[in-house]
Amino acid sequence: MSERVGFIGLGQMGLPMSRNLLKAGVPLTVFNRSRGKVDQLVSEGAALAGSAAELAAACDVVLTCLPMPRDVEELFLGTNGVVAAAKAGALLCDMSTVDADTHRRIAAAAAERGLAYLDAPVSGGVSGACDATLAIMVGGSAAGFDRAKPVFAAMGKNIYHVGPVGAGATVKLINQMMGAICNLSVVEGLVLGTKAGIDPALLAEIVTNSSGGSRALGGAASNVLARNFEPGFTLDLLQKDVSLAVAMARGLGVRTLAGALAEQIIMEARGRGLGGRSTHALIQPLEQAAGVEVRGKG
Amino acid sequence: MSERVGFIGLGQMGLPMSRNLLKAGVPLTVFNRSRGKVDQLVSEGAALAGSAAELAAACDVVLTCLPMPRDVEELFLGTNGVVAAAKAGALLCDMSTVDADTHRRIAAAAAERGLAYLDAPVSGGVSGACDATLAIMVGGSAAGFDRAKPVFAAMGKNIYHVGPVGAGATVKLINQMMGAICNLSVVEGLVLGTKAGIDPALLAEIVTNSSGGSRALGGAASNVLARNFEPGFTLDLLQKDVSLAVAMARGLGVRTLAGALAEQIIMEARGRGLGGRSTHALIQPLEQAAGVEVRGKG
Repeated sequence: MSERVGFIGLGQMGLPMSRNLLKAGVPLTVFNRSRGKVDQLVSEGAALAGSAAELAAACDVVLTCLPMPRDVEELFLGTNGVVAAAKAGALLCDMSTVDADTHRRIAAAAAERGLAYLDAPVSGGVSGACDATLAIMVGGSAAGFDRAKPVFAAMGKNIYHVGPVGAGATVKLINQMMGAICNLSVVEGLVLGTKAGIDPALLAEIVTNSSGGSRALGGAASNVLARNFEPGFTLDLLQKDVSLAVAMARGLGVRTLAGALAEQIIMEARGRGLGGRSTHALIQPLEQAAGVEVRGKG
Repeated sequence: MSERVGFIGLGQMGLPMSRNLLKAGVPLTVFNRSRGKVDQLVSEGAALAGSAAELAAACDVVLTCLPMPRDVEELFLGTNGVVAAAKAGALLCDMSTVDADTHRRIAAAAAERGLAYLDAPVSGGVSGACDATLAIMVGGSAAGFDRAKPVFAAMGKNIYHVGPVGAGATVKLINQMMGAICNLSVVEGLVLGTKAGIDPALLAEIVTNSSGGSRALGGAASNVLARNFEPGFTLDLLQKDVSLAVAMARGLGVRTLAGALAEQIIMEARGRGLGGRSTHALIQPLEQAAGVEVRGKG
């Protein structure tokens, strides 16, 4: 694996993902707008670029992981952006969770310079990023996928080629919307059960082993019962994902009543100041309305 | 285990549950309104009662499993009902999925005669009933639970005492509502993905391994992809359960927007003639509106 890989965006996900590339022996160059995390990785063996353009000019494969669609578009297509600065033959790959149209615009600009582009959003959260067990959903050409696969393999476990550019984002956004709908089931079920006098820990255990179970319940129950709402993944970011999924459905003419309800309920929680809290905090507005708190006995 | 057990209601669930009692060596008397299934069990060793009252008069433990709340109420409290006919010291136990209030009314009438009553709905479907792997959620006194537990153990695997009479129904109905909400995530996700050009089998596989996964997805995906909508568990029965859960929430003053949406979407499907089909048929109205069919390639 002699290709030099660049990583831009050393956030909660990008930092552990980059660290796993280093651990796998990948020659790595990094860049981040804020400096502290860069210094950590440099001390672990990464090269430091002074700008995104400098990184792009130095690397064979450029990976990026940023919060919002506008961040991704600016990084690739803006002044001194990655597409303009990339060296001939480079493979560009964004691993953020943004909409398929943003990916398609970047891919078109990259293609004008003869550069391959992949969208490769991930699932598995911070723990999956740290353990290199992320699921990675890749859109783009088969040749680009085959070239990137060894790099992805250092960061994730289940790596899927799901279609052309934008297909990775499509699958990821649908997963996020499905998870958010399941979150509604968790919120309503736990609050209703608590109000009805059922021990919520026992309720969660039974439902986990019954037809109402979901990964959303598995993730939420222990944290809600312990009243732990530290992110992790925030309601602000979940709304971004669900809103992108609902907008995609609107564009395709598919009604998503439950997805739209999840979006509205998340907006309600953000309006109550919970946007920076973990997604499990979605339960708090309903708890307050019902006059109960879902709490473990322990 | 020398207590004679009676089982009333040999439907899709009750028949295999009764059979597992026989297999475990429990002395069993059965009664059913229609005769065919009774004859099968008699040939396998069950005693036959000529009426529900005759069964109740002959048994130490009376189990019942019927479709609707009105069926349960009539059986226990109607003319020649089980409560009036039961012998002194009998334990009465309804395993149907009905509302907690119905159970409380029956329990009150039973208590006037000094009879113990349990509500013990089950989860796990026909396959769980056949394999004796049902989850059983029991409401009632600890003494009643302890007495019934060896009988339950012949029919299920995870047996929970969740609170006083009505608590079993409460947990079961919440589980059903949570599963129905997760069903909405499956319907919207699979239709949206198919419309967006993603292979729905691959989408289902990825989401199953990601944060959007649920037991509803696991149950639905293979059947939807194979276009198998034979019940199993029908949309008619699912609506009964979800409507009871939403009514319980209304009574407790807990808003369940997603639960109510699930109820409405199920009503829509029933209105289109799908009530007798499996719950997976919930996807068909949205498929028709979106102009796609979620089908496996195979």
